Amino acid sequence: MRESLDFRMSESERAAALRDVGSLIRGVPDFPSPGILFRDITPVLRDPGAMAAALRLHLDAVADLAGSIDRIVGVESRGFLFGMPIAHALGVGFVPARKPGKLPAATVTQSYALEYGEGTLHMHADAIDAGDRVLLVDDLLATGGTASAAARLVQRLGGEVVASLFLIELPFLKGRERLAPLRVEALLPF
Amino acid sequence: MRESLDFRMSESERAAALRDVGSLIRGVPDFPSPGILFRDITPVLRDPGAMAAALRLHLDAVADLAGSIDRIVGVESRGFLFGMPIAHALGVGFVPARKPGKLPAATVTQSYALEYGEGTLHMHADAIDAGDRVLLVDDLLATGGTASAAARLVQRLGGEVVASLFLIELPFLKGRERLAPLRVEALLPF
Repeated sequence: MRESLDFRMSESERAAALRDVGSLIRGVPDFPSPGILFRDITPVLRDPGAMAAALRLHLDAVADLAGSIDRIVGVESRGFLFGMPIAHALGVGFVPARKPGKLPAATVTQSYALEYGEGTLHMHADAIDAGDRVLLVDDLLATGGTASAAARLVQRLGGEVVASLFLIELPFLKGRERLAPLRVEALLPF
Repeated sequence: MRESLDFRMSESERAAALRDVGSLIRGVPDFPSPGILFRDITPVLRDPGAMAAALRLHLDAVADLAGSIDRIVGVESRGFLFGMPIAHALGVGFVPARKPGKLPAATVTQSYALEYGEGTLHMHADAIDAGDRVLLVDDLLATGGTASAAARLVQRLGGEVVASLFLIELPFLKGRERLAPLRVEALLPF
Protein backbone atom coordinates (compact mmCIF):
# COMPACT_ATOMS: atom_id res chain seq x y z
CA MET A 1 0.00 0.00 0.00
CA ARG A 2 1.33 3.41 -0.98
CA GLU A 3 -1.11 5.60 0.92
CA SER A 4 0.78 8.77 0.15
CA LEU A 5 -0.03 8.66 -3.57
CA ASP A 6 -2.59 11.32 -4.38
CA PHE A 7 -3.30 11.98 -8.01
CA ARG A 8 -6.52 13.93 -7.58
CA MET A 9 -6.81 17.10 -9.65
CA SER A 10 -8.95 20.10 -8.79
CA GLU A 11 -11.95 20.78 -11.02
CA SER A 12 -10.23 23.71 -12.68
CA GLU A 13 -7.01 21.73 -13.27
CA ARG A 14 -9.04 18.89 -14.75
CA ALA A 15 -11.03 21.22 -17.03
CA ALA A 16 -7.84 22.89 -18.30
CA ALA A 17 -6.12 19.55 -18.91
CA LEU A 18 -9.15 18.15 -20.77
CA ARG A 19 -9.18 21.25 -22.95
CA ASP A 20 -5.44 20.95 -23.70
CA VAL A 21 -5.64 17.25 -24.54
CA GLY A 22 -8.97 17.35 -26.37
CA SER A 23 -7.85 20.19 -28.64
CA LEU A 24 -4.95 18.01 -29.89
CA ILE A 25 -6.98 14.91 -30.74
CA ARG A 26 -7.23 14.97 -34.49
CA GLY A 27 -10.23 13.63 -36.42
CA VAL A 28 -9.05 11.93 -39.64
CA PRO A 29 -11.94 11.15 -42.00
CA ASP A 30 -12.29 7.83 -43.83
CA PHE A 31 -9.65 5.93 -41.84
CA PRO A 32 -9.22 3.01 -41.69
CA SER A 33 -12.22 2.72 -44.04
CA PRO A 34 -14.72 5.06 -45.76
CA GLY A 35 -17.18 6.72 -43.39
CA ILE A 36 -15.05 6.22 -40.26
CA LEU A 37 -13.74 9.33 -38.45
CA PHE A 38 -10.52 8.14 -36.79
CA ARG A 39 -9.52 9.85 -33.51
CA ASP A 40 -5.76 10.27 -33.76
CA ILE A 41 -3.91 10.75 -30.45
CA THR A 42 -0.43 11.20 -31.94
CA PRO A 43 -0.61 15.05 -31.75
CA VAL A 44 -1.18 14.66 -27.98
CA LEU A 45 1.85 12.39 -27.64
CA ARG A 46 4.21 14.70 -29.53
CA ASP A 47 3.32 17.71 -27.34
CA PRO A 48 5.03 17.27 -23.96
CA GLY A 49 2.55 19.48 -22.10
CA ALA A 50 -0.47 17.69 -23.53
CA MET A 51 1.13 14.28 -22.94
CA ALA A 52 1.80 15.13 -19.29
CA ALA A 53 -1.74 16.50 -18.94
CA ALA A 54 -3.17 13.28 -20.40
CA LEU A 55 -1.13 11.20 -17.97
CA ARG A 56 -2.33 13.32 -15.03
CA LEU A 57 -5.95 12.91 -16.20
CA HIS A 58 -5.58 9.13 -16.39
CA LEU A 59 -4.18 9.04 -12.85
CA ASP A 60 -6.84 11.43 -11.55
CA ALA A 61 -9.60 9.19 -12.95
CA VAL A 62 -8.41 6.22 -10.87
CA ALA A 63 -6.96 8.20 -7.95
CA ASP A 64 -9.14 6.26 -5.50
CA LEU A 65 -7.43 3.02 -6.62
CA ALA A 66 -3.83 4.21 -6.11
CA GLY A 67 -2.21 1.86 -3.62
CA SER A 68 -4.73 -0.94 -4.16
CA ILE A 69 -3.79 -1.99 -7.75
CA ASP A 70 -1.25 -4.77 -8.36
CA ARG A 71 -0.86 -4.67 -12.12
CA ILE A 72 -1.67 -2.65 -15.23
CA VAL A 73 -2.71 -4.60 -18.34
CA GLY A 74 -2.20 -2.63 -21.56
CA VAL A 75 -3.63 -3.77 -24.87
CA GLU A 76 -1.34 -3.85 -27.93
CA SER A 77 -0.24 -1.50 -29.10
CA ARG A 78 -1.74 1.91 -28.25
CA GLY A 79 -2.57 0.61 -24.77
CA PHE A 80 1.18 0.41 -24.18
CA LEU A 81 1.55 4.18 -24.63
CA PHE A 82 -0.15 5.38 -21.45
CA GLY A 83 -0.20 1.95 -19.76
CA MET A 84 3.53 2.02 -19.01
CA PRO A 85 3.73 5.56 -17.55
CA ILE A 86 0.57 4.88 -15.51
CA ALA A 87 2.14 1.68 -14.13
CA HIS A 88 5.34 3.56 -13.31
CA ALA A 89 3.46 6.38 -11.58
CA LEU A 90 1.37 3.93 -9.53
CA GLY A 91 4.47 1.85 -8.70
CA VAL A 92 3.01 -1.37 -10.12
CA GLY A 93 4.00 -3.81 -12.87
CA PHE A 94 2.84 -3.75 -16.49
CA VAL A 95 1.52 -6.72 -18.46
CA PRO A 96 0.98 -6.53 -22.23
CA ALA A 97 -2.03 -8.20 -23.88
CA ARG A 98 -0.78 -8.92 -27.38
CA LYS A 99 -1.79 -10.09 -30.81
CA PRO A 100 -0.96 -13.66 -31.90
CA GLY A 101 2.69 -14.57 -32.52
CA LYS A 102 4.22 -11.85 -30.33
CA LEU A 103 4.57 -13.34 -26.83
CA PRO A 104 7.29 -16.02 -26.66
CA ALA A 105 6.34 -18.04 -23.56
CA ALA A 106 3.18 -20.04 -22.76
CA THR A 107 0.04 -17.93 -23.17
CA VAL A 108 -3.69 -17.96 -22.59
CA THR A 109 -5.71 -16.72 -25.55
CA GLN A 110 -9.14 -15.19 -26.05
CA SER A 111 -10.92 -14.53 -29.33
CA TYR A 112 -13.39 -11.71 -29.87
CA ALA A 113 -15.64 -10.49 -32.67
CA LEU A 114 -14.41 -7.80 -35.07
CA GLU A 115 -16.49 -6.02 -37.70
CA TYR A 116 -15.31 -8.64 -40.18
CA GLY A 117 -14.08 -11.95 -38.74
CA GLU A 118 -12.47 -12.19 -35.33
CA GLY A 119 -9.41 -11.04 -33.40
CA THR A 120 -7.40 -12.90 -30.77
CA LEU A 121 -5.50 -11.59 -27.77
CA HIS A 122 -2.74 -13.42 -25.90
CA MET A 123 -1.35 -12.95 -22.40
CA HIS A 124 1.56 -14.79 -20.81
CA ALA A 125 0.12 -17.49 -18.54
CA ASP A 126 2.48 -16.43 -15.72
CA ALA A 127 1.80 -12.69 -16.12
CA ILE A 128 -0.98 -12.44 -13.52
CA ASP A 129 -0.91 -13.92 -10.02
CA ALA A 130 -4.11 -15.28 -8.52
CA GLY A 131 -5.77 -12.46 -6.61
CA ASP A 132 -4.02 -9.67 -8.52
CA ARG A 133 -6.10 -6.50 -8.71
CA VAL A 134 -5.75 -5.27 -12.29
CA LEU A 135 -6.39 -1.96 -14.04
CA LEU A 136 -6.99 -2.39 -17.76
CA VAL A 137 -5.68 0.43 -20.02
CA ASP A 138 -6.30 1.18 -23.68
CA ASP A 139 -6.46 4.37 -25.71
CA LEU A 140 -9.99 4.00 -27.09
CA LEU A 141 -13.26 2.41 -25.96
CA ALA A 142 -15.34 1.57 -29.03
CA THR A 143 -17.52 -1.58 -28.94
CA GLY A 144 -15.61 -2.91 -25.95
CA GLY A 145 -14.75 -6.18 -27.69
CA THR A 146 -10.98 -5.93 -27.20
CA ALA A 147 -11.22 -4.74 -23.61
CA SER A 148 -13.71 -7.49 -22.82
CA ALA A 149 -11.29 -10.12 -24.21
CA ALA A 150 -8.38 -8.66 -22.20
CA ALA A 151 -10.50 -8.67 -19.03
CA ARG A 152 -11.46 -12.29 -19.65
CA LEU A 153 -7.76 -13.26 -19.92
CA VAL A 154 -7.04 -11.64 -16.54
CA GLN A 155 -9.99 -13.43 -14.96
CA ARG A 156 -8.96 -16.78 -16.40
CA LEU A 157 -5.57 -16.35 -14.70
CA GLY A 158 -7.29 -15.71 -11.36
CA GLY A 159 -6.96 -11.92 -11.38
CA GLU A 160 -9.66 -9.37 -10.71
CA VAL A 161 -10.16 -6.48 -13.13
CA VAL A 162 -11.14 -3.62 -10.86
CA ALA A 163 -11.50 -0.94 -13.53
CA SER A 164 -10.85 -0.10 -17.16
CA LEU A 165 -9.36 3.22 -18.25
CA PHE A 166 -9.47 4.84 -21.68
CA LEU A 167 -8.35 8.17 -23.10
CA ILE A 168 -11.23 8.30 -25.60
CA GLU A 169 -14.75 6.85 -25.60
CA LEU A 170 -17.10 6.56 -28.57
CA PRO A 171 -20.36 6.36 -26.58
CA PHE A 172 -22.53 5.58 -29.62
CA LEU A 173 -20.82 2.17 -29.87
CA LYS A 174 -22.03 1.29 -26.36
CA GLY A 175 -18.78 -0.31 -25.15
CA ARG A 176 -19.55 0.79 -21.61
CA GLU A 177 -22.71 -1.32 -21.64
CA ARG A 178 -20.85 -4.30 -23.00
CA LEU A 179 -18.23 -4.08 -20.26
CA ALA A 180 -20.82 -3.70 -17.45
CA PRO A 181 -20.62 -4.31 -14.54
CA LEU A 182 -16.90 -3.48 -14.96
CA ARG A 183 -16.06 0.07 -13.89
CA VAL A 184 -15.23 2.20 -16.95
CA GLU A 185 -13.30 5.48 -16.80
CA ALA A 186 -12.93 7.39 -20.05
CA LEU A 187 -11.51 10.89 -20.28
CA LEU A 188 -12.91 12.25 -23.53
CA PRO A 189 -16.17 11.17 -25.23
CA PHE A 190 -16.55 11.82 -28.98
CA MET B 1 16.52 23.69 -21.83
CA ARG B 2 15.82 21.98 -18.53
CA GLU B 3 19.28 22.22 -16.97
CA SER B 4 18.15 20.86 -13.63
CA LEU B 5 17.47 17.37 -15.00
CA ASP B 6 20.17 15.02 -13.78
CA PHE B 7 19.62 11.34 -14.36
CA ARG B 8 23.19 10.15 -13.71
CA MET B 9 23.48 7.07 -11.51
CA SER B 10 26.52 6.19 -9.40
CA GLU B 11 28.53 3.16 -10.50
CA SER B 12 27.15 1.05 -7.66
CA GLU B 13 23.56 2.09 -8.38
CA ARG B 14 24.07 1.26 -12.03
CA ALA B 15 25.59 -2.14 -11.29
CA ALA B 16 22.74 -3.04 -8.93
CA ALA B 17 20.09 -1.90 -11.42
CA LEU B 18 21.71 -3.85 -14.27
CA ARG B 19 21.74 -6.95 -12.07
CA ASP B 20 18.05 -6.53 -11.15
CA VAL B 21 16.95 -5.97 -14.74
CA GLY B 22 19.26 -8.53 -16.34
CA SER B 23 18.16 -11.30 -13.97
CA LEU B 24 14.56 -10.84 -15.17
CA ILE B 25 15.21 -11.01 -18.90
CA ARG B 26 14.05 -14.46 -19.90
CA GLY B 27 15.62 -16.46 -22.72
CA VAL B 28 12.94 -18.39 -24.62
CA PRO B 29 14.43 -20.98 -27.01
CA ASP B 30 13.16 -21.47 -30.57
CA PHE B 31 11.06 -18.32 -30.75
CA PRO B 32 9.96 -17.00 -33.17
CA SER B 33 11.67 -19.77 -35.15
CA PRO B 34 13.87 -22.83 -34.42
CA GLY B 35 17.39 -21.98 -33.26
CA ILE B 36 16.52 -18.45 -32.11
CA LEU B 37 16.86 -17.63 -28.39
CA PHE B 38 14.30 -14.87 -27.82
CA ARG B 39 15.09 -12.29 -25.08
CA ASP B 40 11.77 -11.68 -23.35
CA ILE B 41 11.48 -8.42 -21.40
CA THR B 42 7.94 -8.99 -20.08
CA PRO B 43 9.21 -10.26 -16.66
CA VAL B 44 11.01 -6.92 -16.26
CA LEU B 45 7.85 -4.99 -17.07
CA ARG B 46 5.65 -6.90 -14.61
CA ASP B 47 8.05 -6.26 -11.70
CA PRO B 48 7.68 -2.63 -10.59
CA GLY B 49 11.17 -2.45 -9.07
CA ALA B 50 12.86 -3.85 -12.18
CA MET B 51 10.75 -1.66 -14.45
CA ALA B 52 11.73 1.45 -12.52
CA ALA B 53 15.38 0.34 -12.53
CA ALA B 54 15.25 -0.18 -16.31
CA LEU B 55 13.77 3.29 -16.79
CA ARG B 56 16.51 4.83 -14.60
CA LEU B 57 19.17 2.99 -16.60
CA HIS B 58 17.77 4.29 -19.89
CA LEU B 59 17.83 7.84 -18.54
CA ASP B 60 21.32 7.43 -17.08
CA ALA B 61 22.66 6.26 -20.46
CA VAL B 62 21.58 9.51 -22.14
CA ALA B 63 21.90 11.79 -19.08
CA ASP B 64 24.25 14.10 -21.00
CA LEU B 65 21.46 14.72 -23.54
CA ALA B 66 18.76 15.71 -21.02
CA GLY B 67 17.63 19.21 -21.87
CA SER B 68 18.89 19.09 -25.44
CA ILE B 69 16.47 16.53 -26.94
CA ASP B 70 13.25 17.68 -28.62
CA ARG B 71 11.52 14.39 -29.35
CA ILE B 72 11.62 10.66 -28.65
CA VAL B 73 10.87 8.33 -31.56
CA GLY B 74 9.72 4.87 -30.43
CA VAL B 75 9.45 1.95 -32.83
CA GLU B 76 6.25 -0.15 -32.84
CA SER B 77 5.48 -1.78 -30.61
CA ARG B 78 8.02 -2.64 -27.92
CA GLY B 79 9.72 0.71 -28.50
CA PHE B 80 6.53 2.31 -27.12
CA LEU B 81 7.05 0.61 -23.74
CA PHE B 82 10.07 2.58 -22.50
CA GLY B 83 9.81 5.31 -25.14
CA MET B 84 6.82 6.97 -23.50
CA PRO B 85 8.12 7.01 -19.89
CA ILE B 86 11.51 8.25 -21.18
CA ALA B 87 9.77 11.06 -23.09
CA HIS B 88 7.74 11.96 -20.01
CA ALA B 89 10.81 11.98 -17.75
CA LEU B 90 12.77 14.15 -20.20
CA GLY B 91 9.80 16.47 -20.69
CA VAL B 92 9.70 15.99 -24.47
CA GLY B 93 7.15 14.69 -26.95
CA PHE B 94 6.84 11.14 -28.26
CA VAL B 95 6.51 10.12 -31.92
CA PRO B 96 5.62 6.54 -32.91
CA ALA B 97 7.24 4.87 -35.93
CA ARG B 98 4.63 2.33 -37.00
CA LYS B 99 3.95 -0.56 -39.31
CA PRO B 100 1.85 -0.01 -42.44
CA GLY B 101 -1.85 0.76 -42.07
CA LYS B 102 -1.68 2.11 -38.52
CA LEU B 103 -1.07 5.86 -38.82
CA PRO B 104 -4.14 7.71 -40.13
CA ALA B 105 -2.69 10.97 -41.50
CA ALA B 106 -0.12 11.57 -44.27
CA THR B 107 3.08 9.61 -43.67
CA VAL B 108 6.60 9.16 -44.93
CA THR B 109 7.63 5.53 -45.34
CA GLN B 110 10.89 3.61 -45.37
CA SER B 111 11.45 -0.03 -46.29
CA TYR B 112 14.20 -2.22 -44.84
CA ALA B 113 15.46 -5.74 -45.28
CA LEU B 114 14.20 -8.55 -43.08
CA GLU B 115 15.53 -12.11 -42.94
CA TYR B 116 12.86 -13.04 -45.49
CA GLY B 117 11.46 -10.20 -47.57
CA GLU B 118 11.20 -6.64 -46.32
CA GLY B 119 9.53 -4.53 -43.66
CA THR B 120 8.20 -0.99 -43.87
CA LEU B 121 7.98 1.73 -41.24
CA HIS B 122 5.73 4.79 -41.38
CA MET B 123 5.93 8.10 -39.55
CA HIS B 124 3.45 10.95 -39.70
CA ALA B 125 4.85 13.59 -42.06
CA ASP B 126 4.07 16.34 -39.51
CA ALA B 127 5.54 14.45 -36.54
CA ILE B 128 9.04 15.93 -36.71
CA ASP B 129 9.88 19.61 -37.10
CA ALA B 130 12.93 20.61 -39.13
CA GLY B 131 15.88 20.83 -36.76
CA ASP B 132 14.35 18.56 -34.08
CA ARG B 133 16.96 16.70 -32.07
CA VAL B 134 15.64 13.15 -31.76
CA LEU B 135 16.46 10.22 -29.48
CA LEU B 136 15.48 6.88 -31.04
CA VAL B 137 14.21 4.19 -28.62
CA ASP B 138 13.59 0.48 -29.11
CA ASP B 139 13.83 -2.55 -26.84
CA LEU B 140 16.35 -4.56 -28.83
CA LEU B 141 19.26 -3.83 -31.18
CA ALA B 142 19.73 -6.82 -33.48
CA THR B 143 20.86 -6.17 -37.08
CA GLY B 144 19.93 -2.49 -36.81
CA GLY B 145 17.65 -2.63 -39.84
CA THR B 146 14.55 -1.30 -38.09
CA ALA B 147 16.44 1.42 -36.21
CA SER B 148 18.18 2.47 -39.37
CA ALA B 149 14.84 2.83 -41.19
CA ALA B 150 13.39 4.86 -38.29
CA ALA B 151 16.46 7.12 -38.27
CA ARG B 152 16.10 7.66 -42.01
CA LEU B 153 12.46 8.74 -41.57
CA VAL B 154 13.51 11.35 -39.00
CA GLN B 155 16.25 12.63 -41.30
CA ARG B 156 13.89 12.84 -44.29
CA LEU B 157 11.64 15.11 -42.20
CA GLY B 158 14.58 17.39 -41.41
CA GLY B 159 15.30 16.06 -37.92
CA GLU B 160 18.64 15.02 -36.48
CA VAL B 161 18.94 11.67 -34.70
CA VAL B 162 21.42 12.40 -31.93
CA ALA B 163 21.46 8.93 -30.36
CA SER B 164 19.73 5.56 -30.29
CA LEU B 165 18.89 3.78 -27.04
CA PHE B 166 18.14 0.08 -26.53
CA LEU B 167 17.49 -2.09 -23.49
CA ILE B 168 19.14 -5.14 -25.09
CA GLU B 169 21.89 -5.53 -27.70
CA LEU B 170 22.80 -8.70 -29.58
CA PRO B 171 26.39 -7.71 -30.48
CA PHE B 172 26.98 -10.73 -32.75
CA LEU B 173 24.46 -9.26 -35.21
CA LYS B 174 26.60 -6.11 -35.58
CA GLY B 175 23.74 -3.60 -35.45
CA ARG B 176 26.04 -1.03 -33.88
CA GLU B 177 28.28 -1.13 -36.96
CA ARG B 178 25.31 -0.76 -39.27
CA LEU B 179 24.06 2.31 -37.38
CA ALA B 180 27.51 3.98 -37.31
CA PRO B 181 28.27 6.86 -37.02
CA LEU B 182 25.05 7.16 -35.02
CA ARG B 183 25.64 7.04 -31.26
CA VAL B 184 24.32 3.76 -29.83
CA GLU B 185 23.54 3.21 -26.13
CA ALA B 186 22.51 -0.29 -25.11
CA LEU B 187 22.08 -1.40 -21.51
CA LEU B 188 22.48 -5.18 -21.66
CA PRO B 189 24.45 -7.16 -24.28
CA PHE B 190 23.53 -10.84 -24.79
